[in-house]
Amino acid sequence: MATLTYLTTTHFDFGALEQLSRELKKAGVTKPLIATDAGLVGAGIVDTVTGALEDGTPFAVFDETPGNPTEEAVKTALDLYNSEGCDGVIALGGGSSMDLGKAVALLAGSGGPLAQYDPLLGGAKNIKSVAPVIAVPTTSGTGSEVSVGFVIILEDGRKMTFASPLFIPRAAICDPELTMGLPAGMTAATGMDAITHCIEAFLTPQVNPPAEGVALDGLWRGWQYLPRAVKDGSDRDARWHMMMCSTEGAMAFIKGLGAVHAMSHAAGRIRRLNPHHGTLNAVFLPEVLRFNEGACEAKYVRLRQAMGLEPGADLAKAVEAMNAAIGIPSGLAEMGLEESDIAELVEYAQKDLSARSNPRPVTAEDFEAMVRASM
Amino acid sequence: MATLTYLTTTHFDFGALEQLSRELKKAGVTKPLIATDAGLVGAGIVDTVTGALEDGTPFAVFDETPGNPTEEAVKTALDLYNSEGCDGVIALGGGSSMDLGKAVALLAGSGGPLAQYDPLLGGAKNIKSVAPVIAVPTTSGTGSEVSVGFVIILEDGRKMTFASPLFIPRAAICDPELTMGLPAGMTAATGMDAITHCIEAFLTPQVNPPAEGVALDGLWRGWQYLPRAVKDGSDRDARWHMMMCSTEGAMAFIKGLGAVHAMSHAAGRIRRLNPHHGTLNAVFLPEVLRFNEGACEAKYVRLRQAMGLEPGADLAKAVEAMNAAIGIPSGLAEMGLEESDIAELVEYAQKDLSARSNPRPVTAEDFEAMVRASM
Repeated sequence: MATLTYLTTTHFDFGALEQLSRELKKAGVTKPLIATDAGLVGAGIVDTVTGALEDGTPFAVFDETPGNPTEEAVKTALDLYNSEGCDGVIALGGGSSMDLGKAVALLAGSGGPLAQYDPLLGGAKNIKSVAPVIAVPTTSGTGSEVSVGFVIILEDGRKMTFASPLFIPRAAICDPELTMGLPAGMTAATGMDAITHCIEAFLTPQVNPPAEGVALDGLWRGWQYLPRAVKDGSDRDARWHMMMCSTEGAMAFIKGLGAVHAMSHAAGRIRRLNPHHGTLNAVFLPEVLRFNEGACEAKYVRLRQAMGLEPGADLAKAVEAMNAAIGIPSGLAEMGLEESDIAELVEYAQKDLSARSNPRPVTAEDFEAMVRASM
Repeated sequence: MATLTYLTTTHFDFGALEQLSRELKKAGVTKPLIATDAGLVGAGIVDTVTGALEDGTPFAVFDETPGNPTEEAVKTALDLYNSEGCDGVIALGGGSSMDLGKAVALLAGSGGPLAQYDPLLGGAKNIKSVAPVIAVPTTSGTGSEVSVGFVIILEDGRKMTFASPLFIPRAAICDPELTMGLPAGMTAATGMDAITHCIEAFLTPQVNPPAEGVALDGLWRGWQYLPRAVKDGSDRDARWHMMMCSTEGAMAFIKGLGAVHAMSHAAGRIRRLNPHHGTLNAVFLPEVLRFNEGACEAKYVRLRQAMGLEPGADLAKAVEAMNAAIGIPSGLAEMGLEESDIAELVEYAQKDLSARSNPRPVTAEDFEAMVRASM
């Protein structure tokens, strides 16, 4: 049985930030906590966003979101939310800040600890309420602004994916202007995150044709425009389409994701490396495309179409060529992963929520083989 | 500025009808009016649906929906709704019954006459409330079960399209089982309605990439499966995919439609002919594809992909070949349209809401030329 429920209100265009004040009012937020990171404060983007608030609107800023957000940081932000008397969240940034913001909103409405909401243990039933979140992405990758999920490294070391329709922000403000200053390396890594969302969501076996259509449209845009956005960050068309690819990828992954994300989540929790999630996706994607081939041939035909490839083209090789062209590391070894990391990576990948929706079942041996091939 | 708001909850599969009772409860409906037509009573489908209600649920049945629903019929149904003390609508049938049901729900919540809600005159602001509607389609064409619109012939003779997010049914129950008995002719006509929705919605200039992805996915299904569904009505796969094409087509046309629908609405109001809306769409579609060519070349590339055609293939000819293969009349003359009908058809087409969102502006002369070429 396919149950199709579509999502939130997304204001999307250059200038969309003008909608922020109206959306806060609609959500009944009088004093938002702005969940963000120090880089965005430094780049002046937090000022741009607070400048878009109605004059005199009180707010608080939490700018200590780590690259891979932790439960510890969520709790610190929640303390600020409470001590400042906030009643809603502006989740401002890339996936890390937006996910941290969503976690704060959950704890503000339903209390901690986070682990009680583990979706693999039916934790969604413990959600009482979620404080209103308005999401403002500053990268084109995660799509967390429209997604049902967020990912946090728990105090016990697990990198856990939380998922519920209640975690969809009340509104998403997608203003490509906020991505214009993103450096080439981050543009490439986040862009490959968005592209991976489109591909993995499309391939999951869950029945949701509208979401598959959205995924293919996002892939069509991302595959064309990512090289342009990386080459020339001031290319406004490319920035627009990359942000749309990102939003569409996340709309699509209400279908779930697959083995790429299972491994990226598992590798993302290795604090020594603090690897970028999008870079990990880019590096794992070719091997997963090789692994899934044959399990979803008809879908590979449509992927090739969306990517403008010849019939029968090798998808894994096409992704490897894209990675090379936009400066993604050639493999995990270059990112600092070591032989001694592999066993734990495989263990956590197997336990990850995304492992369950891969189109071809994945054993521990399969994961190990793919990790080794991605070194 | 693109504002993307996605839609309603759709239960979609063989057996989805089991969800009816639960959805009525969720919507707070204790006594529904079943808005339907005599054909569905005769075919036993109304019995199937009332059989899916919880034992003892009271209901009333209005089974006099005309082929192109009129304000007069809406008022008769509303009288029954009121005299029976109903508090919600099950809109059961093809586009005619579902649209009539939606109109009854509007008048039940906000009062008549219908003309005050004319969207071209900003009538949406007159909507106070809309009674809850659960939509149960029995054809694969209109997609009214998920759409923001409905179309009624007013007492003054206009065929008016009403549109508001408030007209989206609370839930859609899409059970392809209910379409298994649809005869080949109706399968073809309704199927071409769905395909036209996908194509026209994709081509409108409004910015909504997710809706375009949904449109292309619907077209991909419809173009493959319509000939199978027409040839063998018991082909369950074909019925499933045609119903999905229909639902996706209507999800997509939140973007608007185009010149095909402007002319079909104008021709649909000629009571002497009482033509089928889907058949009209099928007959007008080739000329509109010829007319729009050049105004949206990049989009034509993607239409060809979705339809599995060669690069550069003539879309209009492909639709003509499809029409011939599935038994659609060769033109308007075969449907009974006469020279003397043309002037009024052109006049009403120009005034139609859908004329505004055609990718290429359409003059009266253009409409006349397309009508003549479609004779």
